[in-house]
Amino acid sequence: LVERLRPFTSTIFAEMTALASRTSAVNLGQGFPDTDGPAGMLESARDALFGGANQYPPGPGRPELREAIAAHRARYGTEYDPDREILVTAGATEAIAASLLALAGPGDEVIVVEPYYDSYAAAVAMAGARRRVVSLVPDGDRFALDLDAVRHAITPNTKAILLNSPHNPTGTVFTDSELATLAELCVEHELIAITDEVYEHLVFDDTRHRPLATFPGMAPRTVSISSAGKTFNCTGWKIGWVCATPELTAAVRAAKQFLTFVSGGPLQPAVAHALRHELPWVDSLRTSLQAKRDRLCAGLAEAGFGIRRSEGTYFVCADIHPLGFTDAEELAWRLPESVGVAAVPVSVFTDHPNEWKHLLRFAFCKRDEVLDEAIERLRTLG
Amino acid sequence: LVERLRPFTSTIFAEMTALASRTSAVNLGQGFPDTDGPAGMLESARDALFGGANQYPPGPGRPELREAIAAHRARYGTEYDPDREILVTAGATEAIAASLLALAGPGDEVIVVEPYYDSYAAAVAMAGARRRVVSLVPDGDRFALDLDAVRHAITPNTKAILLNSPHNPTGTVFTDSELATLAELCVEHELIAITDEVYEHLVFDDTRHRPLATFPGMAPRTVSISSAGKTFNCTGWKIGWVCATPELTAAVRAAKQFLTFVSGGPLQPAVAHALRHELPWVDSLRTSLQAKRDRLCAGLAEAGFGIRRSEGTYFVCADIHPLGFTDAEELAWRLPESVGVAAVPVSVFTDHPNEWKHLLRFAFCKRDEVLDEAIERLRTLG
Ligand SMILES: CSCCC(=O)C(=O)O
Ligand SMILES: CSCCC(=O)C(=O)O
Repeated sequence: LVERLRPFTSTIFAEMTALASRTSAVNLGQGFPDTDGPAGMLESARDALFGGANQYPPGPGRPELREAIAAHRARYGTEYDPDREILVTAGATEAIAASLLALAGPGDEVIVVEPYYDSYAAAVAMAGARRRVVSLVPDGDRFALDLDAVRHAITPNTKAILLNSPHNPTGTVFTDSELATLAELCVEHELIAITDEVYEHLVFDDTRHRPLATFPGMAPRTVSISSAGKTFNCTGWKIGWVCATPELTAAVRAAKQFLTFVSGGPLQPAVAHALRHELPWVDSLRTSLQAKRDRLCAGLAEAGFGIRRSEGTYFVCADIHPLGFTDAEELAWRLPESVGVAAVPVSVFTDHPNEWKHLLRFAFCKRDEVLDEAIERLRTLG
Repeated sequence: LVERLRPFTSTIFAEMTALASRTSAVNLGQGFPDTDGPAGMLESARDALFGGANQYPPGPGRPELREAIAAHRARYGTEYDPDREILVTAGATEAIAASLLALAGPGDEVIVVEPYYDSYAAAVAMAGARRRVVSLVPDGDRFALDLDAVRHAITPNTKAILLNSPHNPTGTVFTDSELATLAELCVEHELIAITDEVYEHLVFDDTRHRPLATFPGMAPRTVSISSAGKTFNCTGWKIGWVCATPELTAAVRAAKQFLTFVSGGPLQPAVAHALRHELPWVDSLRTSLQAKRDRLCAGLAEAGFGIRRSEGTYFVCADIHPLGFTDAEELAWRLPESVGVAAVPVSVFTDHPNEWKHLLRFAFCKRDEVLDEAIERLRTLG
């Protein structure tokens, strides 16, 4: 294994899910739902399977899917040309890897917000670039972007900033004012923004998702990434996409075409169908997830955890200090065996584990009885 | 776009297929079949879609698929542990990209056999490594490995050799004696072999495919790559795999998990089914392809081309000199418009276009009436 990848030999998700199944623990670690997406989407995939969609789709993705993505994205008031400004990828993961491989190289720096989704650091390393990490800061029961820290992290070598909102693992959704200031910094310093918006539909209460690309000056410099997995409960399909200018889209495609060429042929028409026709289903998913969030938060609070605010995603972070524990990483590896629940320690998503060792991340995208069973088991911790 | 990717902004397949559809040409350029794979495989994918296989498969691939790959690979007398020596990927393309990103970096050299499948050069470049190109040499109506040239290309910085047999674009299948000598070179110089064997089942007449990993000393140093697309007529599914030692598999997985994480969830059980139960279907595919090869070769010969031997894959190379043409690249871009047939110029797969400018590659994985129509149109060339 080459040196640049040595820190990244495994992912917490694979390891924790493996540990959960070995110990028959309730798996609130890796974020994936335990119910299927809309029936119409599955039927559309079946029709594609038997309707001749099994050979290579076009490199940029099937036209009906690119058109559906453009129409879906137009909700935010942003227009993208399906032919030149949209690229279908193997989930957001490939979109992120291809964006970094295309846009950053040796000598370049990429700003990453900590805690960060684990593929970000690895993808920056594969590109041969250097990551500059800026930490989120506590702000009451939520987390805030530290915009002064972002400003200080920018150097003449800074090429891009990678932003994830709604934010995994914290569940924070950045405010319009945070995003506006960040946008100003990007414009001023001519940075490319790579935005991971896979939880765009999963925002709760009065929170809205506003893409960074919609702020002044950002459309020409933003690679907006999203995917079907979280929106339509099909995490295993790995159908994602990039929306960006023709130049940025062509650059990302240059890398993408040699990573997978294309993928998920017969699943692409089904995602096109879902984007066109299943947003009412997504509304009910959101309502249901909000109730699940409340259910899990109440249970965790009763079990003695300190709860951070979850404004979006399907995750909530819980502080272990009130329970008398001090090391969430150690606790997370012990929990599946000791009480039968798997969670993910937030510190593994950071370069500063000591500052984040009090938090566990729990996924609430599970059936109510599964959440209740996890809560029941976690009560024995106190 | 970063400098290392600037030579690779598009692929010949995407461009030629787009040109073919703009001009309503018969597309014998990009290699994909125009009929579906075995019905049992499609039914198995449908069952998986409605049977709860829509969330993330395990990082290394679904267990039943890894077991089926191991059983399938055992045909060659090589044993792989499904848990530690097999990795499911988004087609062979991702397997190749991940292998190079994991095993080669700046300062390393990778030997590539020319003409080479276009993703090889791009993947070596993304890894930051340097490609050393060794040309195939004419040997009667086939092409041979130039083993002296391979020997001379090896330096202390050589990390790996990338080998494709059955070979695309030439249709050559390397002989046991060529492979045996190559294996000796790999062992002597401690090189890793990365073998792209996606056409392993598509070999004609008395030709057999023998994996490089089966030669003495090669099992510990070979990353063997194959996929379902060509074997089961499902090129758009992009389900591929790697078989290698636990150490090499773990290295490739380190890169792969951050390129796509996983992919094609509900298609994985269907490929497992196909590997277990549909090899008789593949036998009939092979028989049918051999007849198609003969049909197309006869037509091309009648139209005036010089035919090279196709021992495997679904491609045949044809010499344009007998027709009085001298530049296959120029001809290929003109052909869709002028006679209504698309083919691929072999020179685009090389670093020495002048030495390869007499050859066009035609795909014969098409319905007989499509081949006949192409032949009819090509006759007007003479
Ligand atoms: C790609 S596996 C992890 C799923 C996920 O997005 C998460 O749990 O954070
Ligand atoms: C990956 S698209 C090209 C298909 C193919 O393998 C070929 O035509 O050589």
